[in-house]
Amino acid sequence: MTQITNEGLILACSAIGAGLAMIAGIGPGIGQGHAAGHAASAVGRNPGAKSDITSTMLLGQAVAETTGLYGLAIAIILLFANPLLGKL
Amino acid sequence: MTQITNEGLILACSAIGAGLAMIAGIGPGIGQGHAAGHAASAVGRNPGAKSDITSTMLLGQAVAETTGLYGLAIAIILLFANPLLGKL
Amino acid sequence: MTQITNEGLILACSAIGAGLAMIAGIGPGIGQGHAAGHAASAVGRNPGAKSDITSTMLLGQAVAETTGLYGLAIAIILLFANPLLGKL
Amino acid sequence: MTQITNEGLILACSAIGAGLAMIAGIGPGIGQGHAAGHAASAVGRNPGAKSDITSTMLLGQAVAETTGLYGLAIAIILLFANPLLGKL
Amino acid sequence: MTQITNEGLILACSAIGAGLAMIAGIGPGIGQGHAAGHAASAVGRNPGAKSDITSTMLLGQAVAETTGLYGLAIAIILLFANPLLGKL
Amino acid sequence: MTQITNEGLILACSAIGAGLAMIAGIGPGIGQGHAAGHAASAVGRNPGAKSDITSTMLLGQAVAETTGLYGLAIAIILLFANPLLGKL
Amino acid sequence: MTQITNEGLILACSAIGAGLAMIAGIGPGIGQGHAAGHAASAVGRNPGAKSDITSTMLLGQAVAETTGLYGLAIAIILLFANPLLGKL
Amino acid sequence: MTQITNEGLILACSAIGAGLAMIAGIGPGIGQGHAAGHAASAVGRNPGAKSDITSTMLLGQAVAETTGLYGLAIAIILLFANPLLGKL
Amino acid sequence: MTQITNEGLILACSAIGAGLAMIAGIGPGIGQGHAAGHAASAVGRNPGAKSDITSTMLLGQAVAETTGLYGLAIAIILLFANPLLGKL
Amino acid sequence: MTQITNEGLILACSAIGAGLAMIAGIGPGIGQGHAAGHAASAVGRNPGAKSDITSTMLLGQAVAETTGLYGLAIAIILLFANPLLGKL
Amino acid sequence: MTQITNEGLILACSAIGAGLAMIAGIGPGIGQGHAAGHAASAVGRNPGAKSDITSTMLLGQAVAETTGLYGLAIAIILLFANPLLGKL
Amino acid sequence: MTQITNEGLILACSAIGAGLAMIAGIGPGIGQGHAAGHAASAVGRNPGAKSDITSTMLLGQAVAETTGLYGLAIAIILLFANPLLGKL
Amino acid sequence: MTQITNEGLILACSAIGAGLAMIAGIGPGIGQGHAAGHAASAVGRNPGAKSDITSTMLLGQAVAETTGLYGLAIAIILLFANPLLGKL
Amino acid sequence: MTQITNEGLILACSAIGAGLAMIAGIGPGIGQGHAAGHAASAVGRNPGAKSDITSTMLLGQAVAETTGLYGLAIAIILLFANPLLGKL
Repeated sequence: MTQITNEGLILACSAIGAGLAMIAGIGPGIGQGHAAGHAASAVGRNPGAKSDITSTMLLGQAVAETTGLYGLAIAIILLFANPLLGKL
Repeated sequence: MTQITNEGLILACSAIGAGLAMIAGIGPGIGQGHAAGHAASAVGRNPGAKSDITSTMLLGQAVAETTGLYGLAIAIILLFANPLLGKL
Repeated sequence: MTQITNEGLILACSAIGAGLAMIAGIGPGIGQGHAAGHAASAVGRNPGAKSDITSTMLLGQAVAETTGLYGLAIAIILLFANPLLGKL
Repeated sequence: MTQITNEGLILACSAIGAGLAMIAGIGPGIGQGHAAGHAASAVGRNPGAKSDITSTMLLGQAVAETTGLYGLAIAIILLFANPLLGKL
Repeated sequence: MTQITNEGLILACSAIGAGLAMIAGIGPGIGQGHAAGHAASAVGRNPGAKSDITSTMLLGQAVAETTGLYGLAIAIILLFANPLLGKL
Repeated sequence: MTQITNEGLILACSAIGAGLAMIAGIGPGIGQGHAAGHAASAVGRNPGAKSDITSTMLLGQAVAETTGLYGLAIAIILLFANPLLGKL
Repeated sequence: MTQITNEGLILACSAIGAGLAMIAGIGPGIGQGHAAGHAASAVGRNPGAKSDITSTMLLGQAVAETTGLYGLAIAIILLFANPLLGKL
Repeated sequence: MTQITNEGLILACSAIGAGLAMIAGIGPGIGQGHAAGHAASAVGRNPGAKSDITSTMLLGQAVAETTGLYGLAIAIILLFANPLLGKL
Repeated sequence: MTQITNEGLILACSAIGAGLAMIAGIGPGIGQGHAAGHAASAVGRNPGAKSDITSTMLLGQAVAETTGLYGLAIAIILLFANPLLGKL
Repeated sequence: MTQITNEGLILACSAIGAGLAMIAGIGPGIGQGHAAGHAASAVGRNPGAKSDITSTMLLGQAVAETTGLYGLAIAIILLFANPLLGKL
Repeated sequence: MTQITNEGLILACSAIGAGLAMIAGIGPGIGQGHAAGHAASAVGRNPGAKSDITSTMLLGQAVAETTGLYGLAIAIILLFANPLLGKL
Repeated sequence: MTQITNEGLILACSAIGAGLAMIAGIGPGIGQGHAAGHAASAVGRNPGAKSDITSTMLLGQAVAETTGLYGLAIAIILLFANPLLGKL
Repeated sequence: MTQITNEGLILACSAIGAGLAMIAGIGPGIGQGHAAGHAASAVGRNPGAKSDITSTMLLGQAVAETTGLYGLAIAIILLFANPLLGKL
Repeated sequence: MTQITNEGLILACSAIGAGLAMIAGIGPGIGQGHAAGHAASAVGRNPGAKSDITSTMLLGQAVAETTGLYGLAIAIILLFANPLLGKL
């Protein structure tokens, strides 16, 4: 006897949706690693500018991090503060 | 006994839709990391122009952030201010 | 007892469609970040032309933003001003 | 009791179709950003030709915009001026 | 009570088909943006040849536009002049 | 009461098939834009050979157009001169 | 009352198969455009060899066209000379 | 009343299989166009070796054509000389 | 006799969602390896700056790690601290 | 009345499997075309070594052809010498 | 008689989820191989710095390994310490 | 009347599995063609080393062939020596 | 009469999961081959450093192997030491 | 009358899983061919180091082969020594 109600379907789809949202992390992972590689090369060419290079890299990576954080935020909302159930 | 109503189906699909919308974050993540890498290289070649390079990078990244923010906005609307239910 | 009516199916598919439309944001995100990276490199090579480089970058990014905005517009229409229900 | 009629199925598929049409925006987003990056580099190398470079970039981007606009047009037609229902 | 007739299925699939046809726009968008970027670089290197470069770019882009227009044409035919229904 | 006959299924699949056929347009769009970009660069390096470069580009693009035209032809046949129905 | 017979299923799948076969056109489109771009660049570097370059490009493109023509041939056979029905 | 027999299912899947087999044409299309582009460039650099370059290109393309021909052969067998039905 | 309840469906989808979330690890894996490769090259060119290069690489990799950690966190939450069941 | 037996299902899946096996042809097509392009360039740079270059290219292409031939062999076995039916 | 209970569905999905989680290993595999290649090149150019290059490569690879380990951890948890069943 | 038994399902899935296994041929096809192209270029630059270059290429290609052969072996086992049926 | 129990579904999904887990092998395969190519080039440029280059390559490849081994481990656990059944 | 038992489903999924596992062969195929190409180029530049280059290439390819062998091993286990059935 299959017993699926609205709440069950919504919560099951929320789990899938949370997994899909995390896939966004592929982007920042590739991009930030690209930045780290270029920064390490730049430090090798000009070690005296290490602090300048590193701070530029970190600043740029911080911005690139945002879309990964958005995905995390949506996933956490879907899991912990799921507002969809309250709408039934 | 399966009991799915309109509200349940709409909210379940909203959870999936929110996850799909976050996938847009792959783009800004790759692009902004690319920008951070080029900026770090540029600082290594010309540390004296660090503030100019950094501000250009940040300005460009801010624009690139927008499509990630659009995805976040749609996901949040789907979860918290879901206007679809009010239409039933 | 599964109870899905026309309105429910349309609104559920609208949520999926809104999520699909946001995926278009991958393109501008990659492109604008590419522009930001090239602009930052150009500023590093020729800091005196910073304002010219930045304004060119912003102008080009503004045009690249458009398709992301189109996706946002369609998603918002699907969610807030869904014209499909009025056609039933 | 599932109650789906022709009108409901057509309008639901129109919402999915509108979302699919927006995916075309990935192309112009990548291409126009590529153009913006090359233009910014060119301005950095030859600031005196800024107006020429910028107008060339804008002209080229305007043409590249068209396929994104086509997708937008089809999506808007599917949502607001859906001609399919009138054929039933 | 699900009530789907031939007309409904054909028109629903036409909406999906129109959305699929627009995906072809990814190609011209990437290609034309590539052309715009190369043209802007060329103008920066040789501003005196701007009109020649621009007209070549526009001519090439006009040809590249065609497949996007084909997709638009098929989508419009599917929506407005759907010849499939007349065959029933 | 679902009422789908052979004619309805064939015509519905023809609409999907027409959309699939247009996806072939991604190829010529990318390729022709690549050609336009290289031609514009070549004109910038050697403006005196503009007519030669342009005619070569157009000739090459005309050949590249063919597969897009094939897709268009098949889509139009599926929609307007659908020979499948006559076989029932 | 769903009424699908063998003939209907075969012809419907033929429409989908014809659409799939056209997707092969992505390959020649990209390849021939690549050839056109290299040929235009070559003409710009050495305009005196234009006829040699063009005839080489056309010869190579003619071979590259073949797989697109194969797809077209199979699609046309599926639509106009569908040999599958005769086997029932 | 759905009436599908073994013959119908086999022939319908043969139509899909023929379409899938043609997708192999993407490979030779890209590869042969790559060859044509390199050959055209080589002729531009060394027009005196045109016949040598062209015959090498054609020889190489002829081999690259084979997998596209294999796909065509399988598709034609599936459509015209379908050996599967004889096995029932 | 199939006996699936809400709890079963939610937990099954949580297992799938946890697997999907781990796919995000493709991004940091590629990016961090890119960084390691560039750093090793840089050390080879300038061994004296090894500590500077390494610390820059590690700093950049640490940021790139974050989106992988987000995926891990969501997967662990789905498995061990699944908050969805508490909402039924 | 749907009448599918073991034989019908096996033969239908064999047709799909034969189509899938041909997709392997994408690889040799791209690779052999790459080889043809490099060989044509090499002949242009050193026409005196044409026979050596061509024989090397053909030898290498012959090996690359094998996986395409494997796919063809499997497809032909599935269609003409289908050993699966004999196992029932 | 199909007899699937909650426990069966959850464990079956856990097996699929464990397989999906391992796909994350594509990323570190590509990235670490990239690092190994660059390190081997660097050793070839500067054998005296071998220990420095190798330790940098290993350090960077160790960080890149993490996301692969995360996937392994989640897969092992799903298989051996599956916490989902305890929640029923 | 649908009549599918265990044997039929296993053999049908074996046909699909054999087709999937052949897709592995994409890899060796691309890789071996890459090797052939580099070898042909190398012969053009240094014809005196043709036998050394060719034997190196063949040795390397032979190793690259293996995974294609593995796929062929699995496909042949699935078709001719299917050990799965014996386990029923 | 379909007779599927929990054990059957879990073991069937374990077979699929084991196949999915092996796909992770694409990554190390590409990466390690990349490393082998760079190492062979480096040996060609500096044969005296062969042992250093080879040991660096092997060390780096050993690390890159790990994610492939993880996939193998999970597949073997799913097949031979399947812990999921013990949980029923 | 459909008659599928646990054994049939497990063995059918094993055939699909074996096919999926072979797809891992794409990676080593591309990577080893890359290695062969670089090695052939290196031999062309420095024929005296042929044995060193070849042994390095073979050593590196042998490691890259492993993930393809893992896939083969899992496929053979699924087909010949399927341990899943013994668990019923």
